[in-house]
Amino acid sequence: MIDAVTALLPTSAHVLIGPGDDAAVLAASDGRVVVTTDMLVESVHFRRDWSSAYDIGRKAAAQNLADVVAMGARPTALVLAFAAPPDLPLRWATDLARGMANECARVGAVVAGGDMARADVVVLSVTALGDLEGRAPVRRSGARPGDLVLLAGGVGSAAAGLALLESSDARLIEQFADLVAAHRSPSPSYESGLALAELGATAMIDVSDGLSSELHHLARASGVAIAIDDVVPAARLSAAGAALGADAREWVLHGGEDHAILATVPPELTNAAAVWTTCIGVVGTGEGVTMAGEPLTARGWDHFRGRA
Amino acid sequence: MIDAVTALLPTSAHVLIGPGDDAAVLAASDGRVVVTTDMLVESVHFRRDWSSAYDIGRKAAAQNLADVVAMGARPTALVLAFAAPPDLPLRWATDLARGMANECARVGAVVAGGDMARADVVVLSVTALGDLEGRAPVRRSGARPGDLVLLAGGVGSAAAGLALLESSDARLIEQFADLVAAHRSPSPSYESGLALAELGATAMIDVSDGLSSELHHLARASGVAIAIDDVVPAARLSAAGAALGADAREWVLHGGEDHAILATVPPELTNAAAVWTTCIGVVGTGEGVTMAGEPLTARGWDHFRGRA
Repeated sequence: MIDAVTALLPTSAHVLIGPGDDAAVLAASDGRVVVTTDMLVESVHFRRDWSSAYDIGRKAAAQNLADVVAMGARPTALVLAFAAPPDLPLRWATDLARGMANECARVGAVVAGGDMARADVVVLSVTALGDLEGRAPVRRSGARPGDLVLLAGGVGSAAAGLALLESSDARLIEQFADLVAAHRSPSPSYESGLALAELGATAMIDVSDGLSSELHHLARASGVAIAIDDVVPAARLSAAGAALGADAREWVLHGGEDHAILATVPPELTNAAAVWTTCIGVVGTGEGVTMAGEPLTARGWDHFRGRA
Repeated sequence: MIDAVTALLPTSAHVLIGPGDDAAVLAASDGRVVVTTDMLVESVHFRRDWSSAYDIGRKAAAQNLADVVAMGARPTALVLAFAAPPDLPLRWATDLARGMANECARVGAVVAGGDMARADVVVLSVTALGDLEGRAPVRRSGARPGDLVLLAGGVGSAAAGLALLESSDARLIEQFADLVAAHRSPSPSYESGLALAELGATAMIDVSDGLSSELHHLARASGVAIAIDDVVPAARLSAAGAALGADAREWVLHGGEDHAILATVPPELTNAAAVWTTCIGVVGTGEGVTMAGEPLTARGWDHFRGRA
């Protein structure tokens, strides 16, 4: 299985030594390396009957690549630790690897190594590395009063897709296939995140747990207050909400896993990002997060409790 | 739990940004970074009733640090992805982190970040990073005919310790507590591995799966034959073998998880390493591995089948 997976993985100039030795060796051109890791557990973070191996691979890659981008770094490589039941079809593993490799290719990264073990359920642990290309890392703590709050990428679609799958309503799942696809394999806007870093974003964060909780993370880490405008769900989300009897605003405010990039940017720089971001609010002095003048509670996906 | 674990972790000059942001940022002083990852699954790779959380943490760290050293690199940092049942005591997680941090400290590395998730059993996925400090990586493929085969660290003790635990014989487990401890938390000789790299080792490999299979890996990757001398188990291993009715030679040849470092070194350089390594054989032309003139079959721990 390791050979079959390794054989299909493309490589890149960043990979000085790839799979097959005790460890991989990667270029870290500016003398620093960005690293993040995430674990996905079957029936907690994904279901094999709800998502294809290819989509699970894309998603596992995406959430780690988005974390690297949210530091202002270009992802260069992933390593994958993978546990599975002995009866897992080889095809499932190779599809997973193809999904990871293809998501990596969207931002110029590759899968550079891994490990395989046995477990009763599929467990994926992805570690992503990135290159700051000489830039300062963009932390959560850099937001300053007066900055504008920008969002690159949409939020709420993945949560809507999850709600559709949970409804088991085949007709709705087909009708809103775009939202279900957003849940199965989100497409973070890596280049927008990198462009925000290049532009001079003061803070950035990957929206993995829900907009409300990420806004609170930013505000707390930076010691500032954030005021966002009232949220108006896109028509598509509102239609799915109406069909399910759910509140689409909840998906937008508290739904996770879209992996949009949330950034704060000095106002004189925001114009350059106006085409590929949405301005959703402003940074002020004080603390806490408000929406249309009312306190906005942090709520979102809790990775430890999960929601399988 | 994340806060409690993070609070007790020491940091180092290699860590430019530690836990608490989307990703960590580490120094990679010579423009390259070595990376390896391993997954440990409860009841496949460890048992919570056989090993303390502290020992499991040390072992999880050790096996990844040894892989980095086997490339000739000094380990700088680990990141840990960790899944556990919701009822896991906080103390177990903090003991695990202490074990990892203390094993890292043996070689100057630190735990720089992580992720926590829910699962029915404890799953640890460790990714270790290392710094080649300007040296060329030491690969599996560099052994040349005429090189001598050196071993830094003992082999067989961890397998003996596992056999003792599997016997459930409390008296023997107490009598051979040193071997049981070698299974619970091996102590790889990191500095010996680094010194071998500095000395000019042509190939190195971490003995994680058993000496016989690692010898075959080296021979195949390098396109050479390896001839080792007959193995004579240490008296302590022979005594444990006799007590259990087991063949101690099997532990030495095929037992994994001691994380000794196996290296090939040109003969003119081996004298410098004579104090802290054992010369076990010689590299020749051809292919395959022999012991005392007879073919030696590769056999060892299979991480996918496991042996819980």
